[in-house]
Amino acid sequence: MDMRPIGVFDSGLGGLTAVRSLWRILPGEDLVYFGDTARVPYGGRSRETILQYARQDVRFLRSFDLKAIVIACGTVSTTSLETLQAECPLPIVGVVEPTCRRALAVTKNKRVGIIATRASIRSGAYEAALHRLDREAAVVGRSCPLFVPLVENGRFRRGDVVIETVAREYLAPLKEEGVDTLILGCTHYPLLEGVIADVMGPEVTLVSAGEESAFELKRLLKADGRLADESRRGRTEFYVSDQAEEFEQAASIFLQEDVRHTARRIDIERC
Amino acid sequence: MDMRPIGVFDSGLGGLTAVRSLWRILPGEDLVYFGDTARVPYGGRSRETILQYARQDVRFLRSFDLKAIVIACGTVSTTSLETLQAECPLPIVGVVEPTCRRALAVTKNKRVGIIATRASIRSGAYEAALHRLDREAAVVGRSCPLFVPLVENGRFRRGDVVIETVAREYLAPLKEEGVDTLILGCTHYPLLEGVIADVMGPEVTLVSAGEESAFELKRLLKADGRLADESRRGRTEFYVSDQAEEFEQAASIFLQEDVRHTARRIDIERC
Repeated sequence: MDMRPIGVFDSGLGGLTAVRSLWRILPGEDLVYFGDTARVPYGGRSRETILQYARQDVRFLRSFDLKAIVIACGTVSTTSLETLQAECPLPIVGVVEPTCRRALAVTKNKRVGIIATRASIRSGAYEAALHRLDREAAVVGRSCPLFVPLVENGRFRRGDVVIETVAREYLAPLKEEGVDTLILGCTHYPLLEGVIADVMGPEVTLVSAGEESAFELKRLLKADGRLADESRRGRTEFYVSDQAEEFEQAASIFLQEDVRHTARRIDIERC
Repeated sequence: MDMRPIGVFDSGLGGLTAVRSLWRILPGEDLVYFGDTARVPYGGRSRETILQYARQDVRFLRSFDLKAIVIACGTVSTTSLETLQAECPLPIVGVVEPTCRRALAVTKNKRVGIIATRASIRSGAYEAALHRLDREAAVVGRSCPLFVPLVENGRFRRGDVVIETVAREYLAPLKEEGVDTLILGCTHYPLLEGVIADVMGPEVTLVSAGEESAFELKRLLKADGRLADESRRGRTEFYVSDQAEEFEQAASIFLQEDVRHTARRIDIERC
């Protein structure tokens, strides 16, 4: 048993969908969440900038005595995971590998779609991982740069013509390619599950990045005998790099739980 | 005559609409433009974060021998102008005062609307300036947080249901309040002029922030005898804090001029 907390970070709010999965899949664990709300979004930035930000995020989290880190950010996972793993002695779980394994387990026609930020698609990381796991898989990728700002502005509900129009435009090419499985490669996207499912139709299975990394982490901790006491309910601490109040408001929507007055602000550029 | 360049900065691309105005109104001047593309957008961030970023932006520009600085960013102008002016011996022109003067010159019913980013509206700077200049002016402010990401993703054209729906929602309350003048308080918004004009109707006059600050700067330099030689055509240098190529592509759209291979990348966090 290892009662030390798990660190989780994201560029902003999106990683909270991974926190929700962790609460469900690993309810006994304490979590320390960092959302880099002063520098969100990461998805349109260059690889070097993302790596620099991610290093600071890891450095901040390591000021706590952690047992593992979850990169709850698709963009960091696709661009910087290996470098961060090489630089840090803690186990670091990203979203790419576990999500790809899951997608290949559910696809029947071996045509897998992947939607993510510009940086993630540009990295080719999902495509490479899918091909490494199954050489015959056909992969269709598409960046959806407006999904993050639309979600962060609360436009993720069915019946909203704005998100529905943007979703139809982004997803049409994937539908035409006949994918039967679609990876939601950014932790913001689970909030769009209803809208995306409507466009893709019932024959396409959606696979969420954040959820699969929670399962991956559970396997990892279990194998090493380092799960927390599962009879307790873990605590989660929230840290952000910009105003705590706005984060708390939005986080309460993402987590479907009231987290007012619980987030603390830190200066990430000093980390 | 003073042939030193003018520094211009913005959080990203929006300030290029001010550059376009400067080219037209002060064609003889050399410009040094800095776009903080690694940290865009500023408009949703806290006042302290914006001030910290703006100080670094000014510090970078001052590594050139400048005669003046234009803050081509509504958010910095509304939150940090006075502090920056107090800390810097160069003349610094913001967008608020000149734009408010212009709006009061054109309004007939003294009902002025102002649209801008969240940080700008929260600052109350436009409202305060309008009231300082005319105590009887009625001011209606509204933040439009999705306008910047939509513009940066190329969705600013008439006939696009996404931008038109968002614009109608944001602008409806201003129309209901009967404003006859609308300040576009963010330098991204001039690209939405057509869409905004369609929603507001022909009886409402639009006033653009960037353009008025170019006129203000001209008055200022003329009064001090520090205009450049007006018979020449000035040069503009572009600097950004993230990938130059993406900036150049988008900048060519904003400026309606090909600026490929002209931008250089700098590390703003070291400034």
